[in-house]
Amino acid sequence: MQTKSYTLAKLAEKVGGRIVGNGDCVISRVASIENAGPGAICFIYSSKFSKFLEDTNAEAVILTPELAVDAKVPVLIVDKPRAAFAHITALLYPHYKPDAAIHPSAVIDASAQIADSAYIGANVVIEAGARIGEGVYLGPGCVIGRDSVCLANAYLHANVTVYYGCSIGMNTIIHSGTVIGADGFGFEHDGKEWVKIHQVGGVRIGNNVEIGACSTVDRGAVSDTIIEDGVKLDNHIQIAHGVKVGENTIMSNGVGVAGSTTIGKNCMVGGMTGIRDNIEITDNVMITAMSLVSKSLTKPGSYSSNTPIDDTATWRKNTARFRQLDEIARRVTQLERMNKKD
Amino acid sequence: MQTKSYTLAKLAEKVGGRIVGNGDCVISRVASIENAGPGAICFIYSSKFSKFLEDTNAEAVILTPELAVDAKVPVLIVDKPRAAFAHITALLYPHYKPDAAIHPSAVIDASAQIADSAYIGANVVIEAGARIGEGVYLGPGCVIGRDSVCLANAYLHANVTVYYGCSIGMNTIIHSGTVIGADGFGFEHDGKEWVKIHQVGGVRIGNNVEIGACSTVDRGAVSDTIIEDGVKLDNHIQIAHGVKVGENTIMSNGVGVAGSTTIGKNCMVGGMTGIRDNIEITDNVMITAMSLVSKSLTKPGSYSSNTPIDDTATWRKNTARFRQLDEIARRVTQLERMNKKD
Amino acid sequence: MQTKSYTLAKLAEKVGGRIVGNGDCVISRVASIENAGPGAICFIYSSKFSKFLEDTNAEAVILTPELAVDAKVPVLIVDKPRAAFAHITALLYPHYKPDAAIHPSAVIDASAQIADSAYIGANVVIEAGARIGEGVYLGPGCVIGRDSVCLANAYLHANVTVYYGCSIGMNTIIHSGTVIGADGFGFEHDGKEWVKIHQVGGVRIGNNVEIGACSTVDRGAVSDTIIEDGVKLDNHIQIAHGVKVGENTIMSNGVGVAGSTTIGKNCMVGGMTGIRDNIEITDNVMITAMSLVSKSLTKPGSYSSNTPIDDTATWRKNTARFRQLDEIARRVTQLERMNKKD
Repeated sequence: MQTKSYTLAKLAEKVGGRIVGNGDCVISRVASIENAGPGAICFIYSSKFSKFLEDTNAEAVILTPELAVDAKVPVLIVDKPRAAFAHITALLYPHYKPDAAIHPSAVIDASAQIADSAYIGANVVIEAGARIGEGVYLGPGCVIGRDSVCLANAYLHANVTVYYGCSIGMNTIIHSGTVIGADGFGFEHDGKEWVKIHQVGGVRIGNNVEIGACSTVDRGAVSDTIIEDGVKLDNHIQIAHGVKVGENTIMSNGVGVAGSTTIGKNCMVGGMTGIRDNIEITDNVMITAMSLVSKSLTKPGSYSSNTPIDDTATWRKNTARFRQLDEIARRVTQLERMNKKD
Repeated sequence: MQTKSYTLAKLAEKVGGRIVGNGDCVISRVASIENAGPGAICFIYSSKFSKFLEDTNAEAVILTPELAVDAKVPVLIVDKPRAAFAHITALLYPHYKPDAAIHPSAVIDASAQIADSAYIGANVVIEAGARIGEGVYLGPGCVIGRDSVCLANAYLHANVTVYYGCSIGMNTIIHSGTVIGADGFGFEHDGKEWVKIHQVGGVRIGNNVEIGACSTVDRGAVSDTIIEDGVKLDNHIQIAHGVKVGENTIMSNGVGVAGSTTIGKNCMVGGMTGIRDNIEITDNVMITAMSLVSKSLTKPGSYSSNTPIDDTATWRKNTARFRQLDEIARRVTQLERMNKKD
Repeated sequence: MQTKSYTLAKLAEKVGGRIVGNGDCVISRVASIENAGPGAICFIYSSKFSKFLEDTNAEAVILTPELAVDAKVPVLIVDKPRAAFAHITALLYPHYKPDAAIHPSAVIDASAQIADSAYIGANVVIEAGARIGEGVYLGPGCVIGRDSVCLANAYLHANVTVYYGCSIGMNTIIHSGTVIGADGFGFEHDGKEWVKIHQVGGVRIGNNVEIGACSTVDRGAVSDTIIEDGVKLDNHIQIAHGVKVGENTIMSNGVGVAGSTTIGKNCMVGGMTGIRDNIEITDNVMITAMSLVSKSLTKPGSYSSNTPIDDTATWRKNTARFRQLDEIARRVTQLERMNKKD
């Protein structure tokens, strides 16, 4: 993997921080504090890891003012070491971006528009009317459907499928195996069988979004499905038809959001959580992993469902009692009545 | 997206309904009642939305007899507005189907049979002995394995993978990223390591089935995995080896069905539900979202598991008590005994 | 599907067993005891199925010494019939492996190294610096990223995506739609928006691993994500950045393992289980389906969470009481106090 190098002083300038020690040391990679060696920068965000500061072979360390007491190596002092570290990873490890080119094996409809600075990989298929913006990267095997749009610097890894009539925003990253714009799951039973409701909305994905691998964002039934700017979705996510996900909301692996639900801005949804259809989740909601959200959440805050892990024998006894929970509660009420009479 | 146009009278004739108002108005698209404009038809299935009837700019509205009181616009009166709407979406928005052709970039084994009216997209790979029926559409990047069959008018979106020896029924739709016929998950521990049980059954998918994006239907261990006619599966579904899914059963996103389980006809399985192996679910069973089906369900009806969402602080207190549930139940019984003695 | 044939005597020699009856009978396929016919071998591991022994048309049957009493057909006697059966499936149904070749439609960078005995399928893309070992099979549409390695006899079904800098071990099988090496889900909020932490570790997958369809193994944030030898992962699995899965551990469909968690050897993880980040699960742990593992498991044994399936009406009553569980427990304690006073 090709990386870039910066002096510590240059990094401090880029991410905004203060240096203690030699700012001329050259940083070319990141590492964990335990395994760091020459050329590597690492970060500590908690005093729990201070013990490693004595012995680290790192070239430099990123620390908060409180932790930066007597490190033996050059130190970059910032308020948020992890955020500074994130910015530095982008500097040292820029996204692989080959020179603009269209691979000869790509199949591009004559009516598609491809910006000069775009890179179109091997075996990419671009259908009629699609538009590929400046600096876009389409990895091998991507398919861009009719009239779909990838705005400037969108980055689609290999084997992403985008159906017709969808748009992908600027700087948005989509990982392999992900499918944008498949039909929403809409059927109506006519008394005999399920009749397909043809899904005629599209998908609009904003800028600076990232979507993981093997995720799906379905097209809307009538109106578009919308992913706003800055949203981050992990792998195996399902966003159903007509869902709207607000700015900077983040979802971990395997979350499923059912049709026409609206999720606010700055929410955090834990992995493998299911969110039912046609509800609203307000801004700044946090939901812990594997919850089932069965109703609208109108107040910011943290929400959970599910039961705790236990050894199977104990769990079996407790879960059997779950079946009697209503009865148990009634018996407690009855006992209270009897005790009052006494 | 190319749509077709019909007069309201023609639509009424096609879906079976009665018109009040001008049947000559021309319908070319669908919309929601709030956003409808010229050329658009929409539907109302509940009096909740009647208020919009006053002001809608829709060209026409589909209503039940009860709701069709004093609409200002032409009305199509039917018993099931949503089913009529579904049928109309199919008329106005027919599936994209290019003229029969084999894209020059497709790689087709000489022994494969391709019907004259089929469309084979760019970079499709069709292996030895496969048969592609009349009117089939294979989107870009699809792979059809040895001796697999796509019957008439099957419609595979881009990047669908079908392994060897599988069959896809007539009019069946499969969305991108979906994998049909991967090996069932079968291993046996020989005391030292897991030994693969080679999976030698196939997959048989019926007619008029629809399977969403990024779903998997594994091949059988010995006998075939079977999806019967009219089944509708959403995205991220897992159908394991040897499972049989009965006619017109419908499953939402992320459902997992483990090996050799049989599911009846006309079932509805809520999203992210897990169904264990080697059980039977009878016809007409409904299962709510995120349930764990750990035993056979022999009676029609609705089933559920899981716990309700709550604010995390409250949930934490309650879920901690779940660990004591058996003990609490015993204490209640003890209290009852003591109270009786009194 | 092409199969091989063996005499029963030859099979006994290969899997280590004793024959009663005619060892010269020829076996060319496997079947279930109920449906077996000429040429088929089947197995019985439980006396529950002994009744079929009377009437089976199987060519031969695999049995334990206890069950092998008076079968009418030739019998292969072994201690573990299912393990013997597994070995026999591999003999009768060898993996499809075409002669070494590079399909002319494959796109291979000049700097990639391809062993002479490898098979590279149609539309495969192999990027710069990648190395493909002896006997490797790459199905149609696979993409192997820069500097990634497939060791001897790795078998990648169609449409697998491997990012840059990953390694796949010997004899390892990966199914279609699976993505190895996508970016781990790492972001840090800088007060304004989520900043991507570029993921600079790789993925190292051991020997004799099998990974199902539509699964994902993300690259590490700093250190590699590691899947040790003999691990078996089903479909729709998520292995997040920096996770380590120990030897011979097996996971069913839809399991999600969050970042930097370590899982021991010989574990069995039930389907759709979620395992949180930064915890450790020791060797020989079994977790039942749809559990949420929210803490380290330091002792071998079986673990569970979740609640039992019930009819929805009953469940509704019980699940509503879950919200009062802490209160109920307190009321029970209060009653006990009152009873003691008496």
